[in-house]
Amino acid sequence: MRHLLTVLLLLPVTLSAEEGMWTYNNFPSVAVQQKYGFTPTQNWLDKVRLSTVRLAQGCSASFVSPNGLVMTNHHCVSTCVQQLSTKEKNIHADGFYARQASEEKRCPDLEVNQLVEISTVTSRITKAVTGKSGEAYTKALNAEKAAIEEECAKGDDNTRCDVVSLYNGGVFDLYKYRRYQDVRLVFVPEFRIAFFGGDPDNFMFPRYDLDLGMVRVYDKGQPLPTPNHLKWSKAGTKEGELTFVAGNPGSTERLKTISELEYVRDFQLPNRLFSLYEFRGMLWQFQQRGEEQKRISNDDLFSVENSIKALKGEYEALVDKRFFAQKVDAERDLRKRVAANPKWQAEYGKVWDQVAQAMESQRAMYRKHTPLVRLARSELYQIAFTLVRATQELGKPGPERLPGYGDAALPQLKQGLFSEAPIHKEFEIEKLAQSLEKLREMLGPDDQAVKKILGKQSPREVAEKLVAGTSLETVASRKKLFDGGWSTVESSQDTMIAFARLVEPIERAYLLQEQKEIEPVLTRAGEALSKIRFAVFGSTVYPDATFSPRISYGSVQGWMENGRKIGPYTILGGAFERATGADPFRLPDSWLQKKDQLSLTTPFNFVTTNDIIGGNSGSPVFNRNAEVVGLIFDGNIHSLGGAFGFDEKMNRSVAVDSRGITETLTKIYGAERILKEIGAQ
Amino acid sequence: MRHLLTVLLLLPVTLSAEEGMWTYNNFPSVAVQQKYGFTPTQNWLDKVRLSTVRLAQGCSASFVSPNGLVMTNHHCVSTCVQQLSTKEKNIHADGFYARQASEEKRCPDLEVNQLVEISTVTSRITKAVTGKSGEAYTKALNAEKAAIEEECAKGDDNTRCDVVSLYNGGVFDLYKYRRYQDVRLVFVPEFRIAFFGGDPDNFMFPRYDLDLGMVRVYDKGQPLPTPNHLKWSKAGTKEGELTFVAGNPGSTERLKTISELEYVRDFQLPNRLFSLYEFRGMLWQFQQRGEEQKRISNDDLFSVENSIKALKGEYEALVDKRFFAQKVDAERDLRKRVAANPKWQAEYGKVWDQVAQAMESQRAMYRKHTPLVRLARSELYQIAFTLVRATQELGKPGPERLPGYGDAALPQLKQGLFSEAPIHKEFEIEKLAQSLEKLREMLGPDDQAVKKILGKQSPREVAEKLVAGTSLETVASRKKLFDGGWSTVESSQDTMIAFARLVEPIERAYLLQEQKEIEPVLTRAGEALSKIRFAVFGSTVYPDATFSPRISYGSVQGWMENGRKIGPYTILGGAFERATGADPFRLPDSWLQKKDQLSLTTPFNFVTTNDIIGGNSGSPVFNRNAEVVGLIFDGNIHSLGGAFGFDEKMNRSVAVDSRGITETLTKIYGAERILKEIGAQ
Repeated sequence: MRHLLTVLLLLPVTLSAEEGMWTYNNFPSVAVQQKYGFTPTQNWLDKVRLSTVRLAQGCSASFVSPNGLVMTNHHCVSTCVQQLSTKEKNIHADGFYARQASEEKRCPDLEVNQLVEISTVTSRITKAVTGKSGEAYTKALNAEKAAIEEECAKGDDNTRCDVVSLYNGGVFDLYKYRRYQDVRLVFVPEFRIAFFGGDPDNFMFPRYDLDLGMVRVYDKGQPLPTPNHLKWSKAGTKEGELTFVAGNPGSTERLKTISELEYVRDFQLPNRLFSLYEFRGMLWQFQQRGEEQKRISNDDLFSVENSIKALKGEYEALVDKRFFAQKVDAERDLRKRVAANPKWQAEYGKVWDQVAQAMESQRAMYRKHTPLVRLARSELYQIAFTLVRATQELGKPGPERLPGYGDAALPQLKQGLFSEAPIHKEFEIEKLAQSLEKLREMLGPDDQAVKKILGKQSPREVAEKLVAGTSLETVASRKKLFDGGWSTVESSQDTMIAFARLVEPIERAYLLQEQKEIEPVLTRAGEALSKIRFAVFGSTVYPDATFSPRISYGSVQGWMENGRKIGPYTILGGAFERATGADPFRLPDSWLQKKDQLSLTTPFNFVTTNDIIGGNSGSPVFNRNAEVVGLIFDGNIHSLGGAFGFDEKMNRSVAVDSRGITETLTKIYGAERILKEIGAQ
Repeated sequence: MRHLLTVLLLLPVTLSAEEGMWTYNNFPSVAVQQKYGFTPTQNWLDKVRLSTVRLAQGCSASFVSPNGLVMTNHHCVSTCVQQLSTKEKNIHADGFYARQASEEKRCPDLEVNQLVEISTVTSRITKAVTGKSGEAYTKALNAEKAAIEEECAKGDDNTRCDVVSLYNGGVFDLYKYRRYQDVRLVFVPEFRIAFFGGDPDNFMFPRYDLDLGMVRVYDKGQPLPTPNHLKWSKAGTKEGELTFVAGNPGSTERLKTISELEYVRDFQLPNRLFSLYEFRGMLWQFQQRGEEQKRISNDDLFSVENSIKALKGEYEALVDKRFFAQKVDAERDLRKRVAANPKWQAEYGKVWDQVAQAMESQRAMYRKHTPLVRLARSELYQIAFTLVRATQELGKPGPERLPGYGDAALPQLKQGLFSEAPIHKEFEIEKLAQSLEKLREMLGPDDQAVKKILGKQSPREVAEKLVAGTSLETVASRKKLFDGGWSTVESSQDTMIAFARLVEPIERAYLLQEQKEIEPVLTRAGEALSKIRFAVFGSTVYPDATFSPRISYGSVQGWMENGRKIGPYTILGGAFERATGADPFRLPDSWLQKKDQLSLTTPFNFVTTNDIIGGNSGSPVFNRNAEVVGLIFDGNIHSLGGAFGFDEKMNRSVAVDSRGITETLTKIYGAERILKEIGAQ
């Protein structure tokens, strides 16, 4: 689940005690010492950083053995699990356990990133963009980033270098990762228990989920040695105990201005939700075609339901009048402080209005651009588009390429492009037909792009022809096109490639316009706002989340809900009490059969005050000894507004308890090999 | 289409020239005289009132011959057209024309209301509620309304009496209608031309639709004599010519307070849209099951797409910052005026805060209540629910019954209940399963109502069992239950009835709570606000729309769009130019075949400045001689915010031109009988 945390942080004049997704080079060890009597040393922080990883597709994970064994969530590897499932052997439904190393199965698309070094490149970036504005600014910024990343990676595909913009452009750091693409599936339980309670219980607590996925990183065909890893805690936690969470929170908007938040509230979020709800209605009905259709669309349905619940929670935080009024007050206060200082006023006074104006342009752009982007719900289209764009971009020097096509991104791009994951044409037609219809709806039938794309045909006719006339479902034809470069792609007769050739320049024009008119204003403004904040509040500020490694501290704690205390733990027995026999409240047969052998009072799930957000899925929860006590898989319902502010009273992260994992791996799954390896036996 | 008109009316300090949906007892004849040199006399107004009718299901129409022939929109009778269609003979697709009287086919559910008398009952209502508040207030109000309506109708099913609350409770008028339920289909063209351009062109202009439906009112088995009817204009209009529109605008919210508008903007509208988008996604995919499934779900899909487009337009008006700021300013101004007058302040000063508080409760109630109401997307459930509630309510004296179950509403209720319209069980299951799943999603799996309704089963299991075990698809079993009264319904073993017995008391509890906590506050506040407005602005105010007969004036006029003039007329030839051959831009074969015989320069559709809104569909456009010059079927895109305010510069009503109707009935449909009858030949 995307973990989204709630409400109430405004400007960090005084930070909520547990608030913050801290970078490894600015961790508030003193504050932890003051509250919990434990000082995370630099050594300790380095070990944690190297023991935890990012899944490039959007999750977090950790090494839990010396042999490259990785713990994450089932829902973080569910795409792989779907891809390895077949009509005959549905491991998504039935679970998977490699009883011996040779049974571990390679995941087509997984990439693991381990952060090995952070350095600051702010001054280099600043120098490169000084005196520039508009398109020239964006170009210079992107070129300098690309140059830094290229220098860092030195053409080594096993190294990934990202220039990360922190504090909305106030600080630029270079993150150097070790990259691994040979990742193999070791264990997942049945979907029914990984996601027990389904969408209704998603983002809720009390909770009873074994949202666990184990994979292993291989290097040169052998399990990767991982001296830096987290040990296993058999003892687990006690209520009130200090906990850390290390992972990759995806994105927060806590530092955004009011005009940006209004854009999100009144335009971006509702429109995303409209689109997602309609897509979900379609998927829900598509699943009724039969068992096979259900299987092939499960992953999309899960993802869309999860997004809806998360975004709806964000939306409800923003339409909460009291919450928004606080945000408005905080901005008014900051603007007053700036206005009271003539130097500040001269330098920064106009920044809010500039952002507001950029948001107006953004709105117009979104309407034009987004329907084109949503065509990529079709995988075949997405592949075709990537081929058309990548072969053009790769013909240019790195610094001149569009973002996402630099050398740093290439291995991940290729992995996706050449993935052996099966593509289902029947499903592709539905997704493409719907996206094309929405395209016409949003742009109108008289729009030039729509006329080019649909001609005199209906969206469905176009979708059917495109899918019928493409051979992109085979990796070989993709490879041929990619290796042939733009000249091969340009002359290809493949229907989907031809279609992507038609759409790509239209999409590119919007992208370039955004880069010219909106990005420079927002980056400049972000930089200015960040300077204002440092000037006014000092350096006790953490940056908004950027899907790069962060660490947060907190403790095991329930919360008060309408005057009633919600305790921090659930137990295994609770799952049996909640079960109804009908999905999504149906337990797997393995659980029903082994119920008698389980110690039903074993802690199963628990909550902590750690500040997390979507992207933290799969993060380990660990104690001061760097021992795994849990596995983050969700946030509570109150956490959903956390995109905009953190409320320590109500926001909770939701984790699987290490004791629940040990008990079920032992008694239900007989996963001896794993238990021994992690030292849980 | 629901006709929704746009932006910019705030408080009517100075009315936009053409703004207003006027009641027949407060028409601004002087203003019309001043601008157009024509004074509508009382005689003229009476004739118009008697020549125009309301379709009780939600549209407007007019008598266009002395023999009960009624002109309205195709989309106003499309439910009937669907119901009369079969797998073998799909008149929805192919159109229908009764070449002789005996071929006219009865519509199962249509009810026509002709307004024969208006009288004011404000003082009687005021007297009944004086000194009462909360539940007692609502009960007294409803009881007095019911008593007035009963006295008026005197038990005659052919008379319908409605107490209409105008100016949000400032004025109560009694509307007495003659009711007709024997309504027969005479003519509809093919769906393809009735709704040419489909959803993409809905609410757009230029436009090319023959959205025409002709029915005939019968009385005692014979065509109803209608001496009061509108004559046909062969000449049509000229640009700038004075036009009137008489019809039944459904609902506007131009007089609402800011807290009410915020509720609509941040809560009600987005949540309705979320639900509609998801329903639409489901329907869209359901249509892919096959031709038959497409046929049976077309009406639902049309309705949901139309709602989405209309509500999205309303939503966009409300999230327009400038528009909303004007509303805020206007309210601030009014509050200042009240505060400046100590007597007013004492009497009315608190009303805005009271409304704001009621809106908070409304929000909580909506979350609980709405998912139950949406179960009625299933027709079988709706029938069961009506049987359960109606048989209980009918056992009570009229004034004690819930609204909607008074004697005035009975004939319409029975017509729906005993409708011979076919019900499709396969489709019913899908709609019910989705609604049940949404119920669980909105209330949560731990909600008591959800537990009662679903038990240990999945939403789909419940839906399948309910539909399998009911016999309510036959009118005979409904009649038996209805005639047997509550004791029969109470002991019925029919699954759907049993289910409705479970849900009905839960739904009733919410309804009663609303009646107790919210309605009295809003009605009292509406009354107070209306008094304030009369005091401040005098009586040149028209009430918000209430789906009761109104008349508006305006003229044939295009508008300026981004500096470009949109002319007021389209011509028949334009439809052929716009056609692509693929739905919804495919013309019917009859048109393609007869193209050469058509005079392609004949005006087809046109726009006027008349102030209309959803409910006006099917309204005649007529000139000062009370001759039909057009047929309203839509509003332009700018008109969509008209729910909250009218902008004469941009808002346009969209109509079929009488000349386009004459030309196509003559050349394409050879509808001699109709042409003669309306005097168009």
